Amino acid sequence: MIPVISYPDAATLDALFSASRLSPENRAISDSVSRILGDIRQSGEEALLSYTEQLDGVRLSRLEVTEEEINSALDQIDSDFLQVLKTSAAQIRSFHSHQKRNGFSFSPGKGILLGQMVTPLDRVGIYVPGGTAAYPSTVLMNAIPAKIAGCREIFMATPPSPNGQISPEILAAARLAGVTRIFKAGGAQAIGAFAYGTASIPAVDKITGPGNAYVAEAKRQVFGLVAIDMIAGPSEILIISDGHSSPRHLAADLLSQAEHDKMARAVLITTSSQLALQVQQSLEEQLLCLPRQEIARASLKQRGCILVVNDLPAAIQIANQMAPEHLELCVDSPFDHLPDIRHAGSIFLGCHCPEALGDYLAGPNHTLPTGGTARFFSPLSVDDFVKTSQYTYYTREAFLQAAPSVAAFARKEGLEAHGRSALIRKEEAYE
Amino acid sequence: MIPVISYPDAATLDALFSASRLSPENRAISDSVSRILGDIRQSGEEALLSYTEQLDGVRLSRLEVTEEEINSALDQIDSDFLQVLKTSAAQIRSFHSHQKRNGFSFSPGKGILLGQMVTPLDRVGIYVPGGTAAYPSTVLMNAIPAKIAGCREIFMATPPSPNGQISPEILAAARLAGVTRIFKAGGAQAIGAFAYGTASIPAVDKITGPGNAYVAEAKRQVFGLVAIDMIAGPSEILIISDGHSSPRHLAADLLSQAEHDKMARAVLITTSSQLALQVQQSLEEQLLCLPRQEIARASLKQRGCILVVNDLPAAIQIANQMAPEHLELCVDSPFDHLPDIRHAGSIFLGCHCPEALGDYLAGPNHTLPTGGTARFFSPLSVDDFVKTSQYTYYTREAFLQAAPSVAAFARKEGLEAHGRSALIRKEEAYE
Repeated sequence: MIPVISYPDAATLDALFSASRLSPENRAISDSVSRILGDIRQSGEEALLSYTEQLDGVRLSRLEVTEEEINSALDQIDSDFLQVLKTSAAQIRSFHSHQKRNGFSFSPGKGILLGQMVTPLDRVGIYVPGGTAAYPSTVLMNAIPAKIAGCREIFMATPPSPNGQISPEILAAARLAGVTRIFKAGGAQAIGAFAYGTASIPAVDKITGPGNAYVAEAKRQVFGLVAIDMIAGPSEILIISDGHSSPRHLAADLLSQAEHDKMARAVLITTSSQLALQVQQSLEEQLLCLPRQEIARASLKQRGCILVVNDLPAAIQIANQMAPEHLELCVDSPFDHLPDIRHAGSIFLGCHCPEALGDYLAGPNHTLPTGGTARFFSPLSVDDFVKTSQYTYYTREAFLQAAPSVAAFARKEGLEAHGRSALIRKEEAYE
Repeated sequence: MIPVISYPDAATLDALFSASRLSPENRAISDSVSRILGDIRQSGEEALLSYTEQLDGVRLSRLEVTEEEINSALDQIDSDFLQVLKTSAAQIRSFHSHQKRNGFSFSPGKGILLGQMVTPLDRVGIYVPGGTAAYPSTVLMNAIPAKIAGCREIFMATPPSPNGQISPEILAAARLAGVTRIFKAGGAQAIGAFAYGTASIPAVDKITGPGNAYVAEAKRQVFGLVAIDMIAGPSEILIISDGHSSPRHLAADLLSQAEHDKMARAVLITTSSQLALQVQQSLEEQLLCLPRQEIARASLKQRGCILVVNDLPAAIQIANQMAPEHLELCVDSPFDHLPDIRHAGSIFLGCHCPEALGDYLAGPNHTLPTGGTARFFSPLSVDDFVKTSQYTYYTREAFLQAAPSVAAFARKEGLEAHGRSALIRKEEAYE
């Protein structure tokens, strides 16, 4: 049963949320990943095929998904679901198109022009987990922002099932979202292939997408050689209720988080101790109908809690301390409180926005910072698929005015050649 | 002597630039950093003081720089240099203020509002190297963007000299740039203190700034627990000249890069083999006058080169392959070529913009991606000190329309509780 904690003190909250910060690296996972990456680096394609055989149970003769496989997936797929997929893609596209950024240029003085350009990454790799469930929503959430950014090549890697196939929903989502090449590879070995390249998979510039602890650790280890989006931990939700919400709705939303995995964290903060007990009871009732009830029950018991606090400002202060991945503001006038939220990945305003709406359909991204990292990481966005260059233009006259200051600064830092590169332009007028 | 390579083939270029990509982690450095970080994590303040004694040669009784120390630095500092520092700070502020971003919100349908907020990081830590030279420009380039972003707390760490002091220029720059607290700590131990916190240094949300291989590795290891800007390698410049530039100017600019360290890389690409030889000769002449000539000579010989190519498009193609940290376009009509530059950190247009102008005065940032990482990393900017949150608001009517699609998608992914959190809102109208 989910614990209810009334009027938690600072130490209780500290203990609660510091535990959700990333734990120190797990040595066994880190060593195992390091070995896999080393093998991919050294033996490329052959190591990748061999790990795929060992871990996914299939010896592939070809890593890349063919055009025929994609067409056959599109034929197989349920037309109602295809319609939902298209609606979702359209909404995600609409939201992310607002994230497109422009460069700028301006003149801070006569003969001077400064500016910044925004350019897309050339080639990105999206990782899509396989395993027990296929997540076509992940494909849309990662590939659409890359497409909007203008990336020329959008690769996707996802582990094959033991028959060597990829789920048709995943392939359909990839086609809809603009993925250019799809590879059957999973785990740390897929991350290695993206980072180092193999005979059939060219190395990419950035790797995005969720994954298990091995995938997360592999991304951490290749960071620097390539860019990565973020290091994802277990998913989490914080719901704030002022007491005017349906206990059944709140319980359903907590369960939607808890069913992800046993380490998922579902927290409710409310100003009503009566509501707290009602939600606790409704959780028990609703749990009984869930196929994944064992997972959800473990998550609620070990990682979940209901906190009763004095007032909404206290609840919001705790939210900023937790910096939750998902935040539902189930309160009257939710927009009144939005400016007070300093740290949260995705915010759901009011009582008619369950997190699941954002997971699938609303349009904002569902790849979000977890474990308190919303303090410094952002939701996945078009920004992840572009980078900037800055530029400087000075006319000769403008530069000659600046040269003495440049030289003075350089010499103060002990860099004589820097100073000379400025002053030499004063000494001689070269045409 | 710098090598001249005429009409390099693809294999030569590949070998040249793949070597500049980040090398696999150095095991000795990585283990040593891992030990230091572990000690800081476990023993905090005491470990930090002890490493400072061991590595910087001074036992400090207090890590934080006092107000008196800062005031005394401001009294000591040369007034001409203070003026240069102020000019530089003003130009950096002017450029970076153009990077401030707004959120957005829009309605994609009746009863729906979606948006994105941009919020500053609460507390950031800037690392400023010490050692042989003090770099006040680094302080300005890191702290000013953080200040413009709106960070409440801007910490700085820099190693003390053996007498326990910090250079007055560094302290003056910190005061000018808006640094809120300054700590005497260097190396991997300073990065550990920022990441984990100690008794006197609260943990920060993001660490930025350059450093040696130990600092870079420490940043890599704490990434995820905190954010970092990028992992910096040796500095580099690529100059493209169409043959109409002064060989002495080009040589001076190459030397300003080469004097940084022996691993720095200075490359010139030109369409004129006559110019190539003139620059080669001028380098030898100018080297003789440089205090750091030994370093510069080693850098030019081992890591530098002059490439002669057929035409400007060939030069630009090589630039995009190298993705240089600094790119000087010493050509007529440089703006004609700007749109063709896909990957470069900072671009200097025309023959009157030596890189040193950008290092100190022009305004664009000098903390730039190196070793080919300009393919995916950006120059340090205000973006580094903010993060975003996305939000979703649906009225009840709008949500009830969307609910079936949400549930269909969730069930296709095998997440029943997600589906129920949508459908339960259809079943009962709660007020």
